[in-house]
Amino acid sequence: MTDESHRDESHRDDGPREGYRIEHDSMGEVRVPAGAKWRAQTQRAVENFPVSGQRLERAHIQALARIKGAAALVNAELGVVDKDIAAAISEAAAEVAEGRWDDHFPVDVFQTGSGTSSNMNTNEVLATLASERLGRPVHPNDHVNASQSSNDVFPSSIHIAATAAVTGDLIPALAHLAQALERKAAEFAEVVKAGRTHLMDATPVTLGQEFGGYAAQVRYGIERLRASLPRLAELPLGGTAVGTGINTPPGFAAAVIAELARTTGLPLTEARDHFEAQGARDGLVETSGQLRTIAVGLTKIANDLRWMASGPRTGLAEIALPDLQPGSSIMPGKVNPVIPEATLMVAAQVTGNDTTVATAGAAGNFELNVMLPVIAKNLLESIRLLTNVSRLLADRTVDGITANAERAREYAESSPSVVTPLNRYLGYEEAAKVAKRSLAERKTIREVVLESGYVERGLLTLDQLDEALDVLGMTHP
Amino acid sequence: MTDESHRDESHRDDGPREGYRIEHDSMGEVRVPAGAKWRAQTQRAVENFPVSGQRLERAHIQALARIKGAAALVNAELGVVDKDIAAAISEAAAEVAEGRWDDHFPVDVFQTGSGTSSNMNTNEVLATLASERLGRPVHPNDHVNASQSSNDVFPSSIHIAATAAVTGDLIPALAHLAQALERKAAEFAEVVKAGRTHLMDATPVTLGQEFGGYAAQVRYGIERLRASLPRLAELPLGGTAVGTGINTPPGFAAAVIAELARTTGLPLTEARDHFEAQGARDGLVETSGQLRTIAVGLTKIANDLRWMASGPRTGLAEIALPDLQPGSSIMPGKVNPVIPEATLMVAAQVTGNDTTVATAGAAGNFELNVMLPVIAKNLLESIRLLTNVSRLLADRTVDGITANAERAREYAESSPSVVTPLNRYLGYEEAAKVAKRSLAERKTIREVVLESGYVERGLLTLDQLDEALDVLGMTHP
Amino acid sequence: MTDESHRDESHRDDGPREGYRIEHDSMGEVRVPAGAKWRAQTQRAVENFPVSGQRLERAHIQALARIKGAAALVNAELGVVDKDIAAAISEAAAEVAEGRWDDHFPVDVFQTGSGTSSNMNTNEVLATLASERLGRPVHPNDHVNASQSSNDVFPSSIHIAATAAVTGDLIPALAHLAQALERKAAEFAEVVKAGRTHLMDATPVTLGQEFGGYAAQVRYGIERLRASLPRLAELPLGGTAVGTGINTPPGFAAAVIAELARTTGLPLTEARDHFEAQGARDGLVETSGQLRTIAVGLTKIANDLRWMASGPRTGLAEIALPDLQPGSSIMPGKVNPVIPEATLMVAAQVTGNDTTVATAGAAGNFELNVMLPVIAKNLLESIRLLTNVSRLLADRTVDGITANAERAREYAESSPSVVTPLNRYLGYEEAAKVAKRSLAERKTIREVVLESGYVERGLLTLDQLDEALDVLGMTHP
Amino acid sequence: MTDESHRDESHRDDGPREGYRIEHDSMGEVRVPAGAKWRAQTQRAVENFPVSGQRLERAHIQALARIKGAAALVNAELGVVDKDIAAAISEAAAEVAEGRWDDHFPVDVFQTGSGTSSNMNTNEVLATLASERLGRPVHPNDHVNASQSSNDVFPSSIHIAATAAVTGDLIPALAHLAQALERKAAEFAEVVKAGRTHLMDATPVTLGQEFGGYAAQVRYGIERLRASLPRLAELPLGGTAVGTGINTPPGFAAAVIAELARTTGLPLTEARDHFEAQGARDGLVETSGQLRTIAVGLTKIANDLRWMASGPRTGLAEIALPDLQPGSSIMPGKVNPVIPEATLMVAAQVTGNDTTVATAGAAGNFELNVMLPVIAKNLLESIRLLTNVSRLLADRTVDGITANAERAREYAESSPSVVTPLNRYLGYEEAAKVAKRSLAERKTIREVVLESGYVERGLLTLDQLDEALDVLGMTHP
Repeated sequence: MTDESHRDESHRDDGPREGYRIEHDSMGEVRVPAGAKWRAQTQRAVENFPVSGQRLERAHIQALARIKGAAALVNAELGVVDKDIAAAISEAAAEVAEGRWDDHFPVDVFQTGSGTSSNMNTNEVLATLASERLGRPVHPNDHVNASQSSNDVFPSSIHIAATAAVTGDLIPALAHLAQALERKAAEFAEVVKAGRTHLMDATPVTLGQEFGGYAAQVRYGIERLRASLPRLAELPLGGTAVGTGINTPPGFAAAVIAELARTTGLPLTEARDHFEAQGARDGLVETSGQLRTIAVGLTKIANDLRWMASGPRTGLAEIALPDLQPGSSIMPGKVNPVIPEATLMVAAQVTGNDTTVATAGAAGNFELNVMLPVIAKNLLESIRLLTNVSRLLADRTVDGITANAERAREYAESSPSVVTPLNRYLGYEEAAKVAKRSLAERKTIREVVLESGYVERGLLTLDQLDEALDVLGMTHP
Repeated sequence: MTDESHRDESHRDDGPREGYRIEHDSMGEVRVPAGAKWRAQTQRAVENFPVSGQRLERAHIQALARIKGAAALVNAELGVVDKDIAAAISEAAAEVAEGRWDDHFPVDVFQTGSGTSSNMNTNEVLATLASERLGRPVHPNDHVNASQSSNDVFPSSIHIAATAAVTGDLIPALAHLAQALERKAAEFAEVVKAGRTHLMDATPVTLGQEFGGYAAQVRYGIERLRASLPRLAELPLGGTAVGTGINTPPGFAAAVIAELARTTGLPLTEARDHFEAQGARDGLVETSGQLRTIAVGLTKIANDLRWMASGPRTGLAEIALPDLQPGSSIMPGKVNPVIPEATLMVAAQVTGNDTTVATAGAAGNFELNVMLPVIAKNLLESIRLLTNVSRLLADRTVDGITANAERAREYAESSPSVVTPLNRYLGYEEAAKVAKRSLAERKTIREVVLESGYVERGLLTLDQLDEALDVLGMTHP
Repeated sequence: MTDESHRDESHRDDGPREGYRIEHDSMGEVRVPAGAKWRAQTQRAVENFPVSGQRLERAHIQALARIKGAAALVNAELGVVDKDIAAAISEAAAEVAEGRWDDHFPVDVFQTGSGTSSNMNTNEVLATLASERLGRPVHPNDHVNASQSSNDVFPSSIHIAATAAVTGDLIPALAHLAQALERKAAEFAEVVKAGRTHLMDATPVTLGQEFGGYAAQVRYGIERLRASLPRLAELPLGGTAVGTGINTPPGFAAAVIAELARTTGLPLTEARDHFEAQGARDGLVETSGQLRTIAVGLTKIANDLRWMASGPRTGLAEIALPDLQPGSSIMPGKVNPVIPEATLMVAAQVTGNDTTVATAGAAGNFELNVMLPVIAKNLLESIRLLTNVSRLLADRTVDGITANAERAREYAESSPSVVTPLNRYLGYEEAAKVAKRSLAERKTIREVVLESGYVERGLLTLDQLDEALDVLGMTHP
Repeated sequence: MTDESHRDESHRDDGPREGYRIEHDSMGEVRVPAGAKWRAQTQRAVENFPVSGQRLERAHIQALARIKGAAALVNAELGVVDKDIAAAISEAAAEVAEGRWDDHFPVDVFQTGSGTSSNMNTNEVLATLASERLGRPVHPNDHVNASQSSNDVFPSSIHIAATAAVTGDLIPALAHLAQALERKAAEFAEVVKAGRTHLMDATPVTLGQEFGGYAAQVRYGIERLRASLPRLAELPLGGTAVGTGINTPPGFAAAVIAELARTTGLPLTEARDHFEAQGARDGLVETSGQLRTIAVGLTKIANDLRWMASGPRTGLAEIALPDLQPGSSIMPGKVNPVIPEATLMVAAQVTGNDTTVATAGAAGNFELNVMLPVIAKNLLESIRLLTNVSRLLADRTVDGITANAERAREYAESSPSVVTPLNRYLGYEEAAKVAKRSLAERKTIREVVLESGYVERGLLTLDQLDEALDVLGMTHP
């Protein structure tokens, strides 16, 4: 229940003003900042959890608001909540979903493990905003939270936020990166270079084949996310306190989820088993594992790019990355691979976040997992980081890569492994001698063959030699 | 090339005998145990890698042998290898696949990162066995390894072994566990008990609903594995050294994979991009992540079972687990939940193995990941452990669980949360008083309502009271 | 080099104002917000790294500023930098260290892996502030960064920030928690209860013994941090670009570190091997591992507290935690263990952060690890989270715990294991029968012994029975 | 209690023979292989836990036997066990500790979480062996396990085995590796090469400085282990079932630990708090974290070695590793860095094992952690793997490394960063031009300076140029 004092607040979101008002709840009075749209339970949580200073992810608050808005409409249809109140809640929820009231969600991520404090924060802010619209009281629990429980709403909000971020942000960003890599695969289709296995010289590949492989890795990442989506997009909504759906009218969850699916365009569904959905968060752990796999793939790509660009004089120097910022005040020409480095750091962060999600996911007991906010934070942060760094990697690194085709070809031709196709003319033993001499004398295979008199002795013609040593040909045998 | 001395070995697998023979390779002579079917390169690896004492998983050797057998047949068809030699290799490979020659695969898991030593071990053993059959030399490289490279064969063998183990072992074991849980869900459908959220008393659920939730978790695990299978079942075979397929006749990989799919019944396919398939092992990392998610699910289930069985006097004691072995020599009746404990330890092991797989999976460079054997060991071990413990959990714990229905109902009825349906008769405030008194005086809600005179005062009838406090009814609102 | 335009900024930190000014660096012109104290390189980094929105930890900026301040003084002493300029830098650095200019450190954590962008941010802000003081130009590189490199300064700043936070924040917070637990150990010294092993009833312990064990765990955590401190407090400072100390005057590092040790009171030392110090960050990985061990310990403690407080009617209910916020709107008396839950979530986060630190720590190559900012973020965040939650756990949970001594004693007495001391009177076989009957008939051991006529038959006296069954006595055998 | 049948077994350890005998325990009859030294409880465990096929680590069985041997002697001194029986147990324990009866420890690692099955396995084998010596019955519980509980013996055995392996195996192996690296640091003290930061060309270092850094990393690893040893070497022995020491005579634990310390030479101590020692395994988690840090360090070293040896023609090729086995059948000269690869795989395994240990370590409840066997397996395996691979890396790779001093010097001289010392003669601007032209025209800095006429113009002499460009001098400024 709320004092009258907050009613005369203007609707501008200028953050909590100075001064306090008194709010009450079942434990007594609480002093709340005068301008705060939140009420007593939020305030208690603010005071109880001064842990990290980190709040819920923006996408998470949006998902909570979307649920509340849809629930209000369905509650009105089902006669649970007055239609005017429901409309006011729905309009307020739309504003919160847009981000207009983010400053009024002050609760720390490290709070009660059910996310009840953040659910109540949402209920309280919406009640305040709705009552300001209507000019009459709106109750956080009886109206905004009607037919719901933290225990089904809060995990549902994580699934919705993650589904939205995966489909709306990460998959497009990965597709964008894959396209950038594919363009380079086409551009570098004829740039032949030495393959490397065990980091040692191997038979030739083209730079385009390598970039095509990177693009394929990224495309597989999209496939992985899509494969897990059916379980990520399942919502515990409707289970309320323990999965039985106590205090929820029939049809409520199905209608709310249909409304959410309609307005968001997301493939949301109701949990097939509400007791699994209440007690386990395996669907979030699975998605986190897929993000981790994507991070593993980006690590390989970023490392290959860093090594190919290493040098300019004492490294491999097969490609050049765009120059984004001065490298060093004393070393001109020092272009550091800063975006691949940022990518590697994101990958390490996502890997660690995944450990947190799995650790938390294993900690459920009976009808609830009480590690929900930390799962949400880590999962949503991972999606956001991968999204942003994938676009950066595409736009500020991959797009600007140029090949050092001459050097790459030199490598291809100087690799002792190009001797391989000569087996059919010289036999394995002679070919091995050629390769060893090539290494010892730092000459190309071609030079050694010519110097060794094989052509004169009629073992092969010059034409045959040229064809056999065509390194580009070896990449498409 | 091999000395004649090993020819006179009998075909019985009695392991390496005493004494040595001399084998040669390009680096010179090597002393090999007289009875060993392996040759020089295997022996060098044995001496180079005295690290763990652990060998490849049995399923892994089987997969290597299956590839060699199929490759021999296709090489014969394509005219690359003599038909008699191919037939002898194929027959020898079938024996190795059956496990008859496991003692002749002595190479340590911690070896060269490409698995070349184990690929050569397979080549050498098959060459020896085939030459014993034929009575003429069979060459490990020229015949057994023809058209192949360690770099495509060894990772393919991991994908095949994992696909076989997932589909043939783990999914059936999980289905078996799910069925056991579902039988108990049916059996306990009417056993009402207190729900627990935050470990605190909540509104009632049935024990059957909880077991149904566990079964759903396990069924989702199967779904997860199936969702990742398309990428696990893709083989790099045909890429040979660096993905270009150098030294492989056209059609070789497709034909070998078709043969493997036919004989194993597995949904094996050729890699869509051979450069991704050569440089990245993301498909194995993904599958490991799914195993980890299954481990997370089993952790929740095992912990719930342990806690429900805790006691018998100072714990929850809602269920009893079968008594498998004496608990303690001084405490009669101490039945420890040993299979759930073993399950938890397997889950912890799978979680750690997953870290190893992801760490190794991120370590690829250019055309090869050189952490293959450690990825294989951890992935295949995780599948094996989960398979075995799922069956154990079903057969020796879940199947024998009995419910303490009386105590469970006492809990349900004594939970203060059952006061909830009285709101409509008494109002929230009065109901809260009832609940608090119930707690303070250690009485049931029913007792307090009766003692408080609400029935006499006409607020509700005895029938209404009984219906409102029907805890089983609350589980299906 | 900087435009004049920023000179007329007032010294108030009102954040970047509207409008832009032009700054130059070796790559050309950059538009910088008019009110920003930073310059071109910071601005490029802001634009290059829109990844996470997260900035360096406050403690990290402080450490960077402290190094710069001390370096300025030593550079002046050694004649490298003009004394007036050095004094102005030193004064500006003191302001930054205090936190007055935090808004002017906008660079994202996910940036170049050397932290060069944040080192340059510090250099630029200090140059601007110092030049505003002096009224003449101060150069970010030539003056502020003199005798330094990002490659030695940035990792040194992490070690300093972590050493300060461990000794000044975390160790005192852990000591505070240990004291709270020790007070409860004393308070509960006589509260006897059933021990639990495998979650099953075992011989008695006191609640005080358990709290004493928790206190010991926390005290060991302090010991662990102290054991790793010698390596955490070692600084790479003086190695400059690659460990050789190129461009640094003799004695510079030793003097700066002495100055830092003097002003901070921290046990800082110069790296014993500057090449280890440049290429490896093992000291940070080690400390992260110790934080992870502390998190593991807190997990055990938080879980025990949650379970002991579970109920009030269907759980163990041995203790009560203070009531911090309303549990549920429908279930009166539902006090959720919210601080232990927040503690568990912090522990999961620290565990994941540790994975990130280890992953990043393993990624160094040659003379630099380029995962420094992500290591810093995760390590410092872990220290901060553990600090805050340890104090919360002490003040808002442990301090207010009350024991349900009556119920605890009932548990102790009803545990079948208390039969153990009767072996000497009845023999193991008879004692086992007593225990089994006690379980079957839900009676205490004492009741069964009396009913069974052992006293009448002279096997033991009533006094002996009472002494043998003294559960408190069993806790101090 | 045991049938007579096993008495007539010969003392030869020929493993379990064919046929069965009947053993009894409190749950009834069990068929045990006729030749098995174990009895009923071991047999039940063999049948209950067909999970992994992996048994306890050898070092673990040794530690269990050592505890039993010392306990027998102390039990005899304290009058708890008959002196002849104690002597027979002690002699049998010495044989088990030596490894003579390893085949009689068949219990799976994934068993009851307290390790009770393995403790009983030890008790039963020792009882059988001792009774065979004496010719009269020795009881597994009453005699061998007297004054002990699985709950204090089994964790003590892990601490002892780990302490022994760390001090006796791993620290010496790391010292051996450090010495090998230090020898190379001396040998390569004058081999100047380009430093690399961000993988990009930087100012020069010597190869000796790099190897000195690696040696320092390894030496720090030893320091880390020593710093954690005080907590690893603390034993829960004496706490028996729940930490109170019920059923243990005064002085028992102190005397047993003194005896163990005397015979093993290990710095073993009794737990300072027996409730911490019973409920938490943080000391093992801490040690695992240190092993993980060592693995992180080895990863850096192995990767640097691999990259420096990459080539021979398309890589860095600064050093050559010894040739241990043929690389490829088609590519002569392909020496793969197989031991560094094995090292990286061990590091990944240790990292994963550490995750398992931490996950398990966090799972304790009240008076016991029931993840003990999996903790033991992973911790002891990690120590063993690190021990073996450290020696391999020293003996088969580091010892045989040769430097390509000529190429290394070319790198050092061609790095654009060597222009740095010319600042004092040419000024930064001119020096930058020299560097850029050097890069563009692929000439050395010296060539560009000479061609640019700076010497003719009198900006510096040839002697000054030579001194300034002395790359070796830059490594010791």
